[in-house]
Amino acid sequence: MGIEGNGTIATPDRDISRVLIGLADRFGERVSTNPAVRQQHSSQLTWLTGQPPDAVVFPESTEEVSEIVRICATERVPVIPFGAGSSFEGHVNAPYGGVSIDLSRMKKVLSVNAEDLDCVVQAGVTRNELNEHLRDTGLFFPIDPGADASLGGMAATRASGTNAVRYGTMRENVIAVTAVMPNGDIVRTTRRARKSSAGYDLTRLLVGSEGTLGVMTELTLRLSPIPEAIAAAACPFPTVGSACDAVIATIQSAIPVARVELLDEVTVKAVNQYSGLALAETPLLLLEFHGTPDGVAEQSRRFEEIAKEVGGGPLTWSAKQEDRSTLWKARHDAYWACVALRPSARPIPTDVCVPISRLAECVEETKAEIQRLGLIAPIVGHVGDGNFHVQPLVDMTNPEEIETVRRFVGNMVERAISMDGTCTGEHGIGQEKIKYLRLEHGDATISLMQLIKRAVDPDNIMNPGKMLEATR
Amino acid sequence: MGIEGNGTIATPDRDISRVLIGLADRFGERVSTNPAVRQQHSSQLTWLTGQPPDAVVFPESTEEVSEIVRICATERVPVIPFGAGSSFEGHVNAPYGGVSIDLSRMKKVLSVNAEDLDCVVQAGVTRNELNEHLRDTGLFFPIDPGADASLGGMAATRASGTNAVRYGTMRENVIAVTAVMPNGDIVRTTRRARKSSAGYDLTRLLVGSEGTLGVMTELTLRLSPIPEAIAAAACPFPTVGSACDAVIATIQSAIPVARVELLDEVTVKAVNQYSGLALAETPLLLLEFHGTPDGVAEQSRRFEEIAKEVGGGPLTWSAKQEDRSTLWKARHDAYWACVALRPSARPIPTDVCVPISRLAECVEETKAEIQRLGLIAPIVGHVGDGNFHVQPLVDMTNPEEIETVRRFVGNMVERAISMDGTCTGEHGIGQEKIKYLRLEHGDATISLMQLIKRAVDPDNIMNPGKMLEATR
Repeated sequence: MGIEGNGTIATPDRDISRVLIGLADRFGERVSTNPAVRQQHSSQLTWLTGQPPDAVVFPESTEEVSEIVRICATERVPVIPFGAGSSFEGHVNAPYGGVSIDLSRMKKVLSVNAEDLDCVVQAGVTRNELNEHLRDTGLFFPIDPGADASLGGMAATRASGTNAVRYGTMRENVIAVTAVMPNGDIVRTTRRARKSSAGYDLTRLLVGSEGTLGVMTELTLRLSPIPEAIAAAACPFPTVGSACDAVIATIQSAIPVARVELLDEVTVKAVNQYSGLALAETPLLLLEFHGTPDGVAEQSRRFEEIAKEVGGGPLTWSAKQEDRSTLWKARHDAYWACVALRPSARPIPTDVCVPISRLAECVEETKAEIQRLGLIAPIVGHVGDGNFHVQPLVDMTNPEEIETVRRFVGNMVERAISMDGTCTGEHGIGQEKIKYLRLEHGDATISLMQLIKRAVDPDNIMNPGKMLEATR
Repeated sequence: MGIEGNGTIATPDRDISRVLIGLADRFGERVSTNPAVRQQHSSQLTWLTGQPPDAVVFPESTEEVSEIVRICATERVPVIPFGAGSSFEGHVNAPYGGVSIDLSRMKKVLSVNAEDLDCVVQAGVTRNELNEHLRDTGLFFPIDPGADASLGGMAATRASGTNAVRYGTMRENVIAVTAVMPNGDIVRTTRRARKSSAGYDLTRLLVGSEGTLGVMTELTLRLSPIPEAIAAAACPFPTVGSACDAVIATIQSAIPVARVELLDEVTVKAVNQYSGLALAETPLLLLEFHGTPDGVAEQSRRFEEIAKEVGGGPLTWSAKQEDRSTLWKARHDAYWACVALRPSARPIPTDVCVPISRLAECVEETKAEIQRLGLIAPIVGHVGDGNFHVQPLVDMTNPEEIETVRRFVGNMVERAISMDGTCTGEHGIGQEKIKYLRLEHGDATISLMQLIKRAVDPDNIMNPGKMLEATR
């Protein structure tokens, strides 16, 4: 089992072979050291170098995860939780080697409590699987990052998506978490009550912790009633600024818009080509309104008035379910549509988030830099949250271009932070953004995060090399 | 300055007099060791024995709070944050003596960012003061515990109130926190972006931490647009169960009710007497709907249909602002109305929270026990959240009755926990509920909380004796 670490850092003071033997004894064929399997369990989607783990284990229960962590802990071998592998920031990489815990066999929906609008799931269930399971209940789980990510992975990165402006992010929609801590202890953070003032909010400490404190194995999730009526629309604007102004006015008017997505003209063009649509190739908002039939009609009418006032419109309505599905499928396919703009290149999706009053300025300055540098870098935004994504398409054979894009991402992050924003709205820190975390929060706040990390995980075995610089 | 600790526990290994001299040198008349002032800064509202601090300091800025904490830390003298003193669970008591940091001079609203629907305030601003300040902006801050509490205190106890079913609690409405940590470090947890995936959620670690990790000195708060139209109503029900059924159906139907408060018949009677109303003396829901004029009319109509189906109604509408104010003032005065039921007794407000599907059962069983024990104990509930309050009126000269009520509270907590609920929905743990925190969460979860507490506050100077059992 003497596997060479592909780009991993040597850690001679621990005996990985003892751990691999222990895991094989206990889990048999559910442990793999196959190079292809290990490769699949490293970062594959962006420019980050894939750093495979030494082995992959496939547990089926919280108790089994606890056993795995205990076995790894004996030799201080790193533990890397793996959901669907759809992270953009290298969360699943194993820079120090170790054991990837693949939760894809933990697919049980343990309970659906329709009266309480909640459910309990194992962490390997994906968002689409959950919604499929909920089909006949009149309820749905609204958080929708682009990929069909696992709910555990979504919790780990505090994911959100197009519905967050109305329904919140994983922060608001995870009620409780069961997690395995670095010593193997199984912790349930809280119970099923909708609110509580009983002790530290361990749920939200784990949500967004990127696997650096423990492995989340079960989640209690808040569900929402499927709205009686839904209307979707596309609305062109002369500028990104006017589109943002319309969104600010919409939110200030308490119009409970469910989705409001900005596509820049580059993305619209890509989407038209890829999905065979004929959307106006200007900055565009895609919208969705949820409510009663009358309520949706009223929201739509009021939005249309606001859009007109800032020079936007006309709206194109998608009243029929098929048309709506086409529109939102096109939005979720924007990633692939943009990839198709430069098929030989690799897409490097990155995101920042700013107070919405600064969004237009932040997007416009970013677009100006894209133009100045001659990059192909489409922009889409969850504009109701002030969150936007840029997806530079990079020729990975051209070191100079790679370096240019790296600087561009850095500039974008610094711009967002200078506007009281954050270096990531929903992708997480992972490996590449560790340096920006300090820039964003400052030394005292980073020290507090490190203090917590060291207290909970003194041997730094939980997803090391992610989110925080190691302090020992 | 050799003050006797009234009921405080002796801690001979530190020199409080050095700290008091240091504080007096730096803060002059803004330090008080006056017995009356110290007494005011101990728990006064319930049956808990008041445990005054050794001194009270009145800082005016985050930097001054940092100086105070540094001075206290030199001798490991406890620091007890004090807002408006409206806690029911002894949070402001000083069981080990120490210095009360009274934030009531930190009253600045530092910024209102109307386009972003947020503001930044010093922690001593109260909720009514903030809403008064926001008067001309079209925005409001929705969280409304009964008292005009300080926003810092509300954050510390993860407070909520009547609007939480629609607008969330302090957990959802605090965007960022500036806090002074036990070593005097000033930490800002995050920036003003509406969402972020950048690092541990320190905001929510501090919200609800009851002053045991640090002193919150500034808060960035989420604001909401004042709804265009508001309608309020009272609706009687034959039983608590039917009232809860109506609320469950309302929420499942995605009717965005803004307030839905349950009053049991004992409370209704008290409120009628105290506020001169003529509400039906049965289990009663007080409701409020927010939205556009059409939207509110539709919500109200739909609720009325649901209520009728379970035997509730008729609704009495309060369309006019004055009538609405009367109704909600009566609700917020329910505490005093209930006190008036037995003027010689002391009210002991306590709260639990359960999944809403168990609420009727939990309330009914609690009422049955009240009857069995012959207590006077009115019940009000934030029923949309599954949260309810019982307010036994206790003859403090009767030790047997005190003991009976203490057992009753314990039974109520155990009942809530057995229903997957929590020992407190919004009051916090403080002193009395420490034992129930362990019952609710179990040993592994409590150990994790203690681990975090010890890491952040190794000398246990931040509000010691609250929330968690000390481990050293």
